[in-house]
Amino acid sequence: MNWKNEISAAANRINGYAQVTPVIESRVSGLDHPIEMKLEHMQHTGSFKARGAFNTLLSLGVPAAGVVAASGGNHGAAAAYAAQALGYPAKIFVPELAGSSKIALIKQTGADLTVVQGEYANALNAAKEHEAATGAMQIHAYDALATVAGQGTCFAEWEAQGLQADTILVAVGGGGLIAGALGWFGGSRKIVAVEPETSCALHAALQAGAPVDVSVSGIAANALGARRIGSICFDLAQGMTSVLVSDKAIAAAQISLWQSHRMLVEPAGATALAALASGAYAPEPGERVAVLVCGGNIAPDPFLK
Amino acid sequence: MNWKNEISAAANRINGYAQVTPVIESRVSGLDHPIEMKLEHMQHTGSFKARGAFNTLLSLGVPAAGVVAASGGNHGAAAAYAAQALGYPAKIFVPELAGSSKIALIKQTGADLTVVQGEYANALNAAKEHEAATGAMQIHAYDALATVAGQGTCFAEWEAQGLQADTILVAVGGGGLIAGALGWFGGSRKIVAVEPETSCALHAALQAGAPVDVSVSGIAANALGARRIGSICFDLAQGMTSVLVSDKAIAAAQISLWQSHRMLVEPAGATALAALASGAYAPEPGERVAVLVCGGNIAPDPFLK
Repeated sequence: MNWKNEISAAANRINGYAQVTPVIESRVSGLDHPIEMKLEHMQHTGSFKARGAFNTLLSLGVPAAGVVAASGGNHGAAAAYAAQALGYPAKIFVPELAGSSKIALIKQTGADLTVVQGEYANALNAAKEHEAATGAMQIHAYDALATVAGQGTCFAEWEAQGLQADTILVAVGGGGLIAGALGWFGGSRKIVAVEPETSCALHAALQAGAPVDVSVSGIAANALGARRIGSICFDLAQGMTSVLVSDKAIAAAQISLWQSHRMLVEPAGATALAALASGAYAPEPGERVAVLVCGGNIAPDPFLK
Repeated sequence: MNWKNEISAAANRINGYAQVTPVIESRVSGLDHPIEMKLEHMQHTGSFKARGAFNTLLSLGVPAAGVVAASGGNHGAAAAYAAQALGYPAKIFVPELAGSSKIALIKQTGADLTVVQGEYANALNAAKEHEAATGAMQIHAYDALATVAGQGTCFAEWEAQGLQADTILVAVGGGGLIAGALGWFGGSRKIVAVEPETSCALHAALQAGAPVDVSVSGIAANALGARRIGSICFDLAQGMTSVLVSDKAIAAAQISLWQSHRMLVEPAGATALAALASGAYAPEPGERVAVLVCGGNIAPDPFLK
């Protein structure tokens, strides 16, 4: 797979549909260099997921039955938003733990939403049943070429915005975003995977030598709670640095992003930063570090009554 | 006054102390062109005020008694932050309406804080008394050369970031920020003043032909509630376009910034955008418009228990 070509093609495809998200340098860390951050939580529907959703819909033929997606919430909102923008019907399945903010966000797009009991994997099963029964096109949340190529556009865009960092910290759930990073950079910069201790499908897979099922819980589970890492991600992730952070460190990073820069983000959005603040990832002297802020759909929603 | 020189000098002075704030293009408006927004609510202490505070402290000699400031909250937080960063003691007076978020923010800097009964003008009187009694240096919130030049750096920075707009909408309280805009652009772009209907010191002054006292109230009063427009601003503002927006329009713009871009801002921060969404300012066909998002210190603070 020539990921650079796939991602460049995706970037052209979604240009004008996805939001170009801003970057900022944060000097409040006490590191040698400021931390570069890309504010991807400002993407449409509040996470990078809109990139993969638009790329999927724009690159593949959509049947009359429309699209279907299973999601902890962010992917469902993105798929619903992209479908609405392009005029397709959308059916979205989310687990209960998606929470009120993300469920409201999906409803706002006019998508047909079903809330499934239990965890993300149950929603995925329901989506597969819907796909089989109706012929609707499944937009996978992380383990599909078009999804990964779409998420990779985030890093192509960042490089075009003048990214300096030697090392980029990325939060991992099912691995679509970090697969896009690994695909785009292809070893030219160090990518560090950051997962919650209680939702660490990639870490477990790297230790086991193959994707394995993990249990998922914790404050970021409705965004990072994939039970098994995607195979595209796992193949690209061989030999990479993978670190874990506690829920406490994630919550502290959330507060830090608000207090330092008035970024209000969900736990998953602060997970990559948590690795720096907690020391889970300690840069070498002189190492320039960047952090992707990937999601902003905090619960409760500040304006939801 | 050569404002361009003053502001350029201020920009060099505060480089490394103030945050370079990001810009974003918003296509969700339905206008011919995307709206350019500068996210100055991501400045240190959550508003542009840090620019003027740093420029004041770095350009003028600070006495042993330190600095004193009166503020609806944002300027006080900025003055306290800048004083702390540069090692000076700070005494801050705020009116009660500053609210819990801004009062907590000032306390975090370690400044000596007094909450004064009534409105901003009472806090200013208390600050003047403190200045006379102790010899502390007053950092004026808006009507001083060093303050205005500091706020003007926001626009110098924006232009360096590739600002395209023909027209820039700026919220007005005492007028320090918009004076910086008028000083920097010097007629090269159209500046539009946006004030709440219930806090409109500039609008009243332009109608009366001289600064006049106004009563202040409404949801943005703790940031935009100056009783009288600053004389520096008034002199620069002759002949400019001035529009008013309702509290309802401001609240709607706050929600829109969150829903479209996950920017959680205080009412003052959404006031300039409110002029577009409400139609108070209607761009001509083809007119490219920019909006400064100036403050993020929303109450209640999302992380304050």
